[in-house]
Amino acid sequence: MSDKAALLIVAHGSREAAANQAFLAMVARLNRRAGAELAAAFLGTAEPSIPAAAGDLARRGVRRIHLMPWFLSEGRHAREDLPALAAQCERELGVSVRMVPGLQGERLLEEIILDRSAELVEGGAELAEGLPTTGEAITAESRRIIDARLGDYELAGPAREIARRVIHATADFSFARTLRVHERAADAAAEALRERRPIVCDVRMVQAGITATDCELLCAVDQPDIADAARREGTTRSAAAMAKLADRMGGAIVAIGNAPTALWKVLELARGGVRPAVVVGLPVGFVGARESKLALLASGLCCVTNTTCRGGSPVAAAAVNALAAMGRRDAEDTERGKEGDS
Amino acid sequence: MSDKAALLIVAHGSREAAANQAFLAMVARLNRRAGAELAAAFLGTAEPSIPAAAGDLARRGVRRIHLMPWFLSEGRHAREDLPALAAQCERELGVSVRMVPGLQGERLLEEIILDRSAELVEGGAELAEGLPTTGEAITAESRRIIDARLGDYELAGPAREIARRVIHATADFSFARTLRVHERAADAAAEALRERRPIVCDVRMVQAGITATDCELLCAVDQPDIADAARREGTTRSAAAMAKLADRMGGAIVAIGNAPTALWKVLELARGGVRPAVVVGLPVGFVGARESKLALLASGLCCVTNTTCRGGSPVAAAAVNALAAMGRRDAEDTERGKEGDS
Repeated sequence: MSDKAALLIVAHGSREAAANQAFLAMVARLNRRAGAELAAAFLGTAEPSIPAAAGDLARRGVRRIHLMPWFLSEGRHAREDLPALAAQCERELGVSVRMVPGLQGERLLEEIILDRSAELVEGGAELAEGLPTTGEAITAESRRIIDARLGDYELAGPAREIARRVIHATADFSFARTLRVHERAADAAAEALRERRPIVCDVRMVQAGITATDCELLCAVDQPDIADAARREGTTRSAAAMAKLADRMGGAIVAIGNAPTALWKVLELARGGVRPAVVVGLPVGFVGARESKLALLASGLCCVTNTTCRGGSPVAAAAVNALAAMGRRDAEDTERGKEGDS
Repeated sequence: MSDKAALLIVAHGSREAAANQAFLAMVARLNRRAGAELAAAFLGTAEPSIPAAAGDLARRGVRRIHLMPWFLSEGRHAREDLPALAAQCERELGVSVRMVPGLQGERLLEEIILDRSAELVEGGAELAEGLPTTGEAITAESRRIIDARLGDYELAGPAREIARRVIHATADFSFARTLRVHERAADAAAEALRERRPIVCDVRMVQAGITATDCELLCAVDQPDIADAARREGTTRSAAAMAKLADRMGGAIVAIGNAPTALWKVLELARGGVRPAVVVGLPVGFVGARESKLALLASGLCCVTNTTCRGGSPVAAAAVNALAAMGRRDAEDTERGKEGDS
């Protein structure tokens, strides 16, 4: 059976037919550019209703329907009516129907406001007034802003530390929602660094961004034989570089911030018996990045990753720096414990 | 008289107090990061009303109020009620009150749907099947996806080339909306590279990401005397590094992908007479990144920048790589032209 998925976007519906038409037209236009099939429905009296639209998708072979609320304010409708309708459709149509996050807390939505407000400013150099100037003060203020917003997310322990550092590096709060941190990741990374294992990086930018440890940083992507190897094997230089460093990966941290193909190669090496301590797999892009990260999660390897096409060298480097900083604090605590014992 | 401006964001208002509170809290939170003062009001019965919120702004010295409708569907409310209320406030308060575009047709809003649809794919190692594997094929497929989505934006020439490359590096389409490219940026960069001027980078990650030119890449952030200089001057290492490289900036490309303080320093040097060919100013973060980029736009310097807190080393490097690639094509065209003439 096919496992076809579709995103069903649900609006309130207006008494004005033109407003409803505009919504349907937008979804139809986006459908041509989306990663999965899109469909539109209304919660109110406008047509199509959710059961009608879901039924249409099911008849056309869709087996997984994701319901996305298209409301600026998610009150009772999103909390009660939509899940009830989703359950009803699931029963009646025999397909999976589940809710996905809507617009509430969505960063891109907030960017629209910030963008509009930027257009009002006619200032220049005087905008610097009152801003902190030293590295310490800037980091502290950034942390304060990030912590204030992270309160809205269910994040604790190492996952929270990694999210803080990633958001500091990217100003992108979507990572607070999409990061996935294996429960053993922090301990495994601390152990690898304590044992002075290297950190294997896919590209030089990741290597340049790792600043919180003095362990050896390895990157082979621009070594002279790598371009030839990539051509020979029909792969990328990043993937060929990972293969070349395979014998350094056992018990080490692997940090991938650019190339999905590097992550696929690490997964292949792992199936062949290579065992990194932690795979920080955060490549970026529209071609295979998300797929490679889902495969990493499914592999059972100890990892730090996320579930969208976003990622990048600063993201991977920030995650490694967070792991290293936590490991250092651990080591200091152990050291203090020892002193207390002696 | 002061010319203070504010953005007054107007929501429908819900019967659920919690939903209204969430809207007010979002605006209050964004207010700390916005370029101009933000305020919130409701069109319905929730408090504050538009006249109450506008009156409050006027009493606090605001002379230009921009009314932004916060509705997913702009029907009669946005077309008739809001302009009528704006005119009423203008008469009664003696300040300018005008409408600015709301969410209708807003590209960033549509990106949320496209992001969600990309997240529907599920699976493990089998997800690699059918994906392109070589660097060339991956880049071509990524370009195809990006070009299909870029069709909706009003982007042409160098701005489009830079947006393509930045989005390829970040998988973040918000840059298509927020990038600002000076009309002379491409020509000025091509000339700088033709004259073999260096590229002055704020951090090593930016330097590591610039791959499309063999011009000299300068970065002083980790030179031994820089940490001392930063401490002495109460600034960051990135800013001290920019000051140190000031005599290499004339006619050169300056690339800033990390530190707002580095960009402030370049603006200060420019006021003192230093004249870079192009400033690629794309620092990231919640503390001064946006402000420094707005100041760059106001400075009149030839630049590539954007108007939000987003940015980063891959963004700055991608912008420089796009400029270098365009410059190379230009040079090749000129070369071919010469051959044709001879």
